[in-house]
Amino acid sequence: MLKANAFYAQSGGVTAVINASACGVIETARQYKGQMGTVFAGRNGILGALNEELIDTSKESVQSIAALRDTPSGAFGSCRYKLKSIQENPREYQRLIDVFKAHNIRFFFYNGGGDSQDTANKVSQLGRDLGYELQCIGIPKTVDNDLPFTDSCPGFGSVAKYVAVSTREAALDVASMCETSTKIFVLEVMGRHAGWIAAASALAQSRPNDAPHIILLPEVPFNQAHFLKKVASCVKRNGYCVIVASEGAQYADGSFLADAGSKDAFGHTQLGGVAPMLAALIKSELGYKYHWAVADYLQRAARHIASATDVEQAYALGKAAVELAIEGKTAVMPTIVRISDDPYRWKLGEVKLSRVANVERKMPKNYISKDGFGITAAARRYLAPLIHGEDYPPYEGGLPQYVRLKNQLVAKKLPVQW
Amino acid sequence: MLKANAFYAQSGGVTAVINASACGVIETARQYKGQMGTVFAGRNGILGALNEELIDTSKESVQSIAALRDTPSGAFGSCRYKLKSIQENPREYQRLIDVFKAHNIRFFFYNGGGDSQDTANKVSQLGRDLGYELQCIGIPKTVDNDLPFTDSCPGFGSVAKYVAVSTREAALDVASMCETSTKIFVLEVMGRHAGWIAAASALAQSRPNDAPHIILLPEVPFNQAHFLKKVASCVKRNGYCVIVASEGAQYADGSFLADAGSKDAFGHTQLGGVAPMLAALIKSELGYKYHWAVADYLQRAARHIASATDVEQAYALGKAAVELAIEGKTAVMPTIVRISDDPYRWKLGEVKLSRVANVERKMPKNYISKDGFGITAAARRYLAPLIHGEDYPPYEGGLPQYVRLKNQLVAKKLPVQW
Repeated sequence: MLKANAFYAQSGGVTAVINASACGVIETARQYKGQMGTVFAGRNGILGALNEELIDTSKESVQSIAALRDTPSGAFGSCRYKLKSIQENPREYQRLIDVFKAHNIRFFFYNGGGDSQDTANKVSQLGRDLGYELQCIGIPKTVDNDLPFTDSCPGFGSVAKYVAVSTREAALDVASMCETSTKIFVLEVMGRHAGWIAAASALAQSRPNDAPHIILLPEVPFNQAHFLKKVASCVKRNGYCVIVASEGAQYADGSFLADAGSKDAFGHTQLGGVAPMLAALIKSELGYKYHWAVADYLQRAARHIASATDVEQAYALGKAAVELAIEGKTAVMPTIVRISDDPYRWKLGEVKLSRVANVERKMPKNYISKDGFGITAAARRYLAPLIHGEDYPPYEGGLPQYVRLKNQLVAKKLPVQW
Repeated sequence: MLKANAFYAQSGGVTAVINASACGVIETARQYKGQMGTVFAGRNGILGALNEELIDTSKESVQSIAALRDTPSGAFGSCRYKLKSIQENPREYQRLIDVFKAHNIRFFFYNGGGDSQDTANKVSQLGRDLGYELQCIGIPKTVDNDLPFTDSCPGFGSVAKYVAVSTREAALDVASMCETSTKIFVLEVMGRHAGWIAAASALAQSRPNDAPHIILLPEVPFNQAHFLKKVASCVKRNGYCVIVASEGAQYADGSFLADAGSKDAFGHTQLGGVAPMLAALIKSELGYKYHWAVADYLQRAARHIASATDVEQAYALGKAAVELAIEGKTAVMPTIVRISDDPYRWKLGEVKLSRVANVERKMPKNYISKDGFGITAAARRYLAPLIHGEDYPPYEGGLPQYVRLKNQLVAKKLPVQW
């Protein structure tokens, strides 16, 4: 019998290290040549399977695959596309089976966040429900750090490091100018429902009264009067005030401070603009001169300042996914299990996809300071090791050298219309 | 006779490398102990002289001064404060003389941009107009790169590198998602009247059709119809479009695309919000899903991704300032003189302050592409070497270690009121 091939896809928002997971998958699969055939990557995620657009990773050199570890974004393309349930859309699942069968694919690796693990879980039911045996392994990825059962999510550590470093640097800037110029700096960061990214900015602090002075988390309802009082007292004490706000900062009724109005394919509201909104509020109520920044994609693409811990874990989880498949496992996701905070030690674990799907892990209450504007010592113990270590990409001519793959598609075997 | 002391001040917006110039000044002054006494740094720039708030840098250890080279922002505080002319405000100049006399200061080093070199030039006339002999040396600094007579300005190379790296990274992100999600990414960068920073984003390109696809420079009047046509054709060709816009992007009548309405101490309009304005325009006229980022202070404080060339030149100019003073020069500013583009070679030069003051160097016409949305090969040859080399700060626990000085003030000798 022909050796079975593997399908690997990147799903949802990309990160600085999702390609490190891809690197882990492909390099490990190449080591298990006897048990696993070619890794086909989906062009634009699961759409690549539906459209029979399969990238033949065996055409990529050892050097190119190794360079994925250093390259941000999704090298094969990602997508925001959510499969319905098998009951609701059996045609889509039948198409997956047709494509997988045509290319002898019996391993399915899906690299994504909560929505994607839900998709992976549905695909894992193909065997039971539609009689096509497929080993299905999820690989965690999300800058939001909101997947359950894994101590942390690849992508988060690097965003956390970017945000902590940027906050430390911008705060020094504001501090040196505040006597005659800008007194308020607002940095808007990602995090729709969970405040992990904004919380990580607190790692910039090394002494009392260090920035950030105020962190706005989606978990804490925004109270305008409390907020303005805190801003004024910060300026009085320090001469300036640095605020880091989650894009998902919200009022008690769940409405976002800044709602851009459009929605993505998953029905999530597209956010943006909390920082200018807060800056204008402070200006109008307190009169302080302000600056604001919105990091947006810069934060999740910032491979140049990636966390070495994050890169290492992203790779390890990709590797573990292949090893779990080789062991015969299915419908599981490898996880990071923390052994100790300091010194930081971790190992790999695993969890059933059915338990992961559609569960969102927010910041626990004991991680949020009493006044709601900061984090506790417990949160700091959790967050600190995730940004440890630098893992600089190679540079040429002053710029990081990121690999671009050939991304050669396999010849189609099926009709384009289905 | 007592050895004369020196006054050093940081002025205007701070940068990732202005402290490297301070390091050059102080380390070099320490080498010329026989000819130069203590370097007193102004607390918050020239205000430190007016208020007799003089920081005694001799109290700082060799290690702390050396660490200034790695530390962004203004270690002694900077200010936005413009001296009037001697004729308009003789009291202010008399106060400077009183303070300098009280502390035996006969060397004056002023580290700043165009407005600051104008101040330095006025101070250099104290001898002629008010009979107080003072050697006055300007040290160039500005992320805007708009000082004349110097090939480049310390601070610019590091912002240029930050912007080029960030554009390359964010563009990879957009490229991997564009088929089913965001098609437009707008990055807003600094540059009020000169487009140097936005232009530097073009260094992110390494192949045809690479991002950024559109650069909006203040030098090129914004034409909405041309712009939208270009955006649509980019999306058609590449599947996505990355735009880098100067905060100073403006209409033909000189009004800014986004005018926040407030003004700084120099009477400059405080800008912000070009990126969301452009994104909303594209959404409403072309319907594309967008993301936008405003880098603001993050770009000029980003010591973590500083250009090694920039750090080296910032230090060299600080050093040269002291050496010029030792040689007996006054009313001059050391400059960078380019010898060749590739391999990049440069040397130090000097220019009279009177020629520098209040001259703004915009992008020359032959640096701007025909359609106004990009740069020419000549611009690329000019810009490329300025981002060469990485100069990483030391890290601990995942965070860059930036020095904070003791900043011990000298005892006042004069009445506080003047």
